[in-house]
Formats: sequence, structure tokens, C-alpha cells
Amino acid sequence: MKKITLLLLIFLTGTISTQAQQAIFGEVPIVSPEINDDQSVTFRIKAPLANEVRLMGDWMPPVGWAPGSAELTKDENGIWTYTTESLDSDLYTYSFSVDSVRTIDPSNPHVIRDVANLFNVFIIGDGKGDNYKVTDVPHGSVTRRWYESPGLDMQRRITIYTPPGYENSEEEYPVLYLLHGAGGDEEAWIALGRTSQILDNLIADGKAEPMIVVMTNGNVDQQAAPGEAPAGYVTPQFMLPSTMNGKFIETFPDVIRFVESEYRVVADKAHRAIAGLSMGGFHTMHISRFHPDTFDYVALFSAAIMPRDESASPVFADIKGTLETQMNNGYELYWIGIGKSDFLFEANTQYRAMLDEMGMEYEYMETEGGHTWTNWRVYLTEIAPLLFK
Amino acid sequence: MKKITLLLLIFLTGTISTQAQQAIFGEVPIVSPEINDDQSVTFRIKAPLANEVRLMGDWMPPVGWAPGSAELTKDENGIWTYTTESLDSDLYTYSFSVDSVRTIDPSNPHVIRDVANLFNVFIIGDGKGDNYKVTDVPHGSVTRRWYESPGLDMQRRITIYTPPGYENSEEEYPVLYLLHGAGGDEEAWIALGRTSQILDNLIADGKAEPMIVVMTNGNVDQQAAPGEAPAGYVTPQFMLPSTMNGKFIETFPDVIRFVESEYRVVADKAHRAIAGLSMGGFHTMHISRFHPDTFDYVALFSAAIMPRDESASPVFADIKGTLETQMNNGYELYWIGIGKSDFLFEANTQYRAMLDEMGMEYEYMETEGGHTWTNWRVYLTEIAPLLFK
Repeated sequence: MKKITLLLLIFLTGTISTQAQQAIFGEVPIVSPEINDDQSVTFRIKAPLANEVRLMGDWMPPVGWAPGSAELTKDENGIWTYTTESLDSDLYTYSFSVDSVRTIDPSNPHVIRDVANLFNVFIIGDGKGDNYKVTDVPHGSVTRRWYESPGLDMQRRITIYTPPGYENSEEEYPVLYLLHGAGGDEEAWIALGRTSQILDNLIADGKAEPMIVVMTNGNVDQQAAPGEAPAGYVTPQFMLPSTMNGKFIETFPDVIRFVESEYRVVADKAHRAIAGLSMGGFHTMHISRFHPDTFDYVALFSAAIMPRDESASPVFADIKGTLETQMNNGYELYWIGIGKSDFLFEANTQYRAMLDEMGMEYEYMETEGGHTWTNWRVYLTEIAPLLFK
Repeated sequence: MKKITLLLLIFLTGTISTQAQQAIFGEVPIVSPEINDDQSVTFRIKAPLANEVRLMGDWMPPVGWAPGSAELTKDENGIWTYTTESLDSDLYTYSFSVDSVRTIDPSNPHVIRDVANLFNVFIIGDGKGDNYKVTDVPHGSVTRRWYESPGLDMQRRITIYTPPGYENSEEEYPVLYLLHGAGGDEEAWIALGRTSQILDNLIADGKAEPMIVVMTNGNVDQQAAPGEAPAGYVTPQFMLPSTMNGKFIETFPDVIRFVESEYRVVADKAHRAIAGLSMGGFHTMHISRFHPDTFDYVALFSAAIMPRDESASPVFADIKGTLETQMNNGYELYWIGIGKSDFLFEANTQYRAMLDEMGMEYEYMETEGGHTWTNWRVYLTEIAPLLFK
């Protein structure tokens, strides 16, 4: 039978088997990843001509600064296989190296971009991973739109989560501003951070208040994520110029003004929260003390606590004094989370010592692991239930 | 210098060079794709151990049903290179085959999923490709949200483009319903189709009226795109059961009701358009005649015109009679576009002959090429300026 006839047959019957379709398009049906009953995971890739295939998974302990990896084994059909130990419930990312060429899994089109690299993704449920799944609960809406930042003289892209029911109520909602790290942009939290899934699930469980979550782009030289701006399909950079020079902190009121004029929100301190990871933790710390009567809820995730050149921007003047003002103005929550092996652990310890000395209260969470999205998803899941209560 | 100190230095200075960063993370800076001044494109991939590297690009003529491909050449550093002829301005997709393993370009994180495969993407400007670029014009908003379909007894995900200024006006807008093909979902038109870029650009040029564009999921057994539904990270299928059994056509009023109750629209025939590609062209043809006084604008892109089992659904009864009703009710535009080498060309020719015989008027566009997104982006760019005028 000619292929064209077969394709017409597919259209006509609409029920032809997956195998037959794959036969038409010349594909071998390889299942990868396969999550086994014992929560081990089997990976497969067809590479008959390869001499070595390795798997890099974010559950493997890194080797120095290199990712951990494991070797796959080849069978007589040229299919390479590797099965993990049982894994804890979580969201995991991975990629392959085939004869030293980094590649995603050709059998798994589900990927997330982290800075300049794509990683395949899978979730193991029955535990923490369930927080990150799309489940059968009411869903919020996720909008990518543009706002004017007069302070930066720029149209800028922003990602906004509105909770289930927002469109059909008259209610006014609180707002969490959620900031990404170096190399990230307005796509980072929604994709890598699973914000909409975490919020949908926590709200459905009655654990978190319905809230709007605003995911900005913290790179002040950039209008939008790579590929989403007039700059075109540029290569994402780990660190752009000017991201930590104070300009984002100075002009953050542009974001708040936009949100509070465009959304049904309670526009007061008691209904504003700000949280950020790494560079976004740096932004969060400085924004919340530089605008010291704006947020009742502040959360630093693996924050890049580090000295700044005070001459670069007025925002870096009198850090201790403005923290004291923030403390004296009062707040409901100042939250610090960090992993024990994070390269910023020591800097955060010193920062906590300073807060202790000042008598500035905070809640503290110390987790295993380092500077990872695995931790940041946990931190978001931890703090969301503490907000606006 | 220790790596950890270097990383701190990056944070501190915020200006360290790309090269130094890449040195830290052990990457070699390979630029791929590189668009040259003469609109040729150079592709590069480091694969020192490979014996053969091929490039598959959607600008290459297919070989039967297989994609066209070209061989790359290896240099002494293990970097494989290939440079195309000059390419016309357009959006292009490509992938590599490294010793028979299909892989995306490790230097290019910009990808689009088409059914179960990811393809890298780039745009050549100064012509048609400019329609598909993010340009410095006012931008519409793109929202992913969920609606209730009582007819399918399901929460379903939907993608909605609202034009620039929608949020800050009292105006009521017309609506284009834009339907995907087999293997697609509510992500297809926004990602592969460049809907928001095409509309932003046409509206800014005064060529198209500001309109809302509604991108549904036409697979009635599916709540949402793979990975976006409680079904989890399932493998996308070219053809799901029940996609062409009439159920989507019967229940399409669920979509219209949702849109017209949730958005500021002019809820009449003169302000409704429907268009779809391939299976979505099939849906468009049947929806517009089964609900024969609903749309003043109808456009079929490479439509899957084919016989149906009339007993499967009441929507397939009396096709000619309902087309006549649609014709007698009147409409502003009935548009048919198809590529000369499309496997559905003959079926569309027969359909046009039937319309001619009935005296049912339509506009017709015949393009080079086949059943491709290259054509469907052109068709959207063609019809959008014809709507609501």
C-alpha cells in the first residue's frame, strides 16, 4: 500500500494504531523515560553506531562542578538502556551524551529550557512530585503580556498567573511578585518553577489563599526572554550586563503600578509579597528594604547575598539603615531558605547573623542540596501557604 | 582561581565576558545557526567522534516521504559545518542526525514541538520572515486558560490572543477561531503558526483589524496538550481517537459560548471567523455548514476534505444540503488555500468543483509546496487582512 493511501486511511478511520503510524513514518517505538512500579526509571535511546552513551540526571550527585552521569548499556538492536535506583517523588530533568554530543531524549519531547540548555523532564508522583503535576483541580490562567516601564524606557514582557475563578468574580486578590535568578527571565518560574501547578494544587487543597503571581524579567537590558523580544533568537546568557546594578530595584514600582492598575488587587502592603531565587533573592532583599513599607511578606530563596558597589546606584546606600527601617515598619514574614551545599550558604549564614544582631526576625529553612530548581520548587511550595493569612 | 570564586566574581561584577562564563562551565562557544550577509546559513555542531552528521531542514525538498538532508563536513577540531545556499526570507525549522541519532542543535535552545518531535527554529528577515518576528510594535496578550465544555463533559485548555490595547479599552472585538491539524493541540498555532507575531505585525501595519484569536484543542479525547493535562507527560500522537467523529463539530458552540461570555466581543455572525488547517480545515468546513448562520468568514487551509461515515454523527448528514443553507444564508468570505504538492490537493480540487457546481462562491489561493507550516503561516497572513472589513 502506498504511504499516501495509508495516510488518507488514518484521516478516514481516525483509529489506526500508533504502531501503524510509526511504521508509516519509519520510527521505532522506543519508550523513554519509563517509570517503573518501584519508582525506578528506565531510559532508552537508539544509537547503533555510538561507542558511549551517558545519562546526566539532576538527581545524580554532581562531580565537582560537572553534572553526575551514568553509562547506558547497548543491546543487539543498538538500543542503549539504563535503569536508575528507585527515585523519590519529585520533578526531574535529564539529558544524554552520545559520543560526547549533548542531546535531549529523542523519545521525549517534553523539555524545559534552563538558560541556554534544554533538559527533558519527568515527574514521579505519590509524594512531593504531585505538587508539580497538572491535576484534576480548577486551573488558574497564565498570561504573557507586555507593560510599559517608564523607568527603563522600555516595553517589557511579563508572565502573570491569575487564580481559578479570577475572571468570574468581583473579588480583589493579593499579589506575589516572584523573581528569577541569573540567566532566567519571565519564562523561568512558570516553566522550571512549575508555579501554576504548585499554586493550582495548593489553592485547591485550601492550603494557599487564591493569589495573583507576577513573574517579571529582572534583566534590565532585556525586553523579554530570548526569542520573545525584537532582539530575536539570541543565545541566552548566564549573566547579562546591568542585572545587578540597582536599576531593577529602583524601577520595580513600574511593575507594581502596572499590576495594580490592570488587575483586581488589594493594593496595600498586607496584600503584597515578594520572593526570588539567587539573583532574584538579591533583588528581593534590596527591593523590599529600598521600598521599605511595601511588602508584608518577603522570601529569599538561595539569595545572592553579596557586597555591592555603593556608588553604582542610590539603592545600595545605607543597607543596614534601610533594613532597620523595614524592620521598624513591621512585616508579617521574612523568610530565608538555602541548601546546605549551596555556594551561597556561607553568605546567607553571615546575613542571618547580621539580622540576628539587629534583632530582625525571620523564618529559616535549611534543606539538603545546593543551588537548584529542585530546592526552589520546594521553597515556593513552603512559602505560598504562609502568605496573606 | 577556584570555580566558586569565579562564580562569585560573576555575581559581583555582573559584567564578566561570555567567554569566561563558558570557560567556567566547560563549554566551547559554537555559533549555530549563523545567518550570513547573503542569507545563506551556516550550521555547526561539535561531534569529534561521529562518522556522519546530517542536517534536515524544512527548506530542503523531501525525498519521497523522508525529509531532505545535507551532509556536514568535519574539521580538525571535530566541528562539523554546513552552509546552505542563500535562503528566501522565512521562518525555518531543522534538526541534526549524528550517526543516525536525531538530535536538536546543542547550540540553539530555540525549538518548537511539532507533534512528537522538537525542531530548532530560525528566521531570515527582510521579507516574508519579518511577519513572523517579534518586532518593536504594540503586542497583544496570550493567555492559556481552561473552560468548561458541557458537551464533552470536560475542563479543556484553550489559548487566547487578545490584541494590543484590549485590556485598556471598552471596545468590543471580532473573533477568529483558529483550528489545528492532526497531531496538534492548543499550542500548535501559537508556537508553529506564529499567530501572535503575525497578528501583532498586521495590526500595527493597519492591514488587519484588531481581533481576538481563539486557539482550541480539537482532540475531543484530550483535555489539553500533552504535558499540560492530568494525563501527564504523554507522548504526542499524530492521530487520536475520535478527533474526526463529529463530536468536536457538534460541541463547538461550547467554545463560542465561553468566549462570548468571557471576552468583550461583538457576538454576531459579522464578527465571527473560523479557519483551520488540515484536520482543522475539515473541522472548519463542517462546523461552518453545521452551524450555518454563525460565521461570515470561513477559511480552509490544506483542508482534509474527505468522505465521512454519515452514521457516525448527525453532523455528517446531508452535507450538500447544509452547504446550500450556508450559501443561502450568505457570508462575506469562503477561502480555500492549498499547496500544489499537497497530498490533499486532488481532494480540494474535487471539493472546489462541487462548490462551483453549486454556485457557492469562494476565494482560492494555490501555493508552491505541500502540507506544511510554511504554507499555513502564509495562509494566516493572507486571510487575516480580509476579515471583518
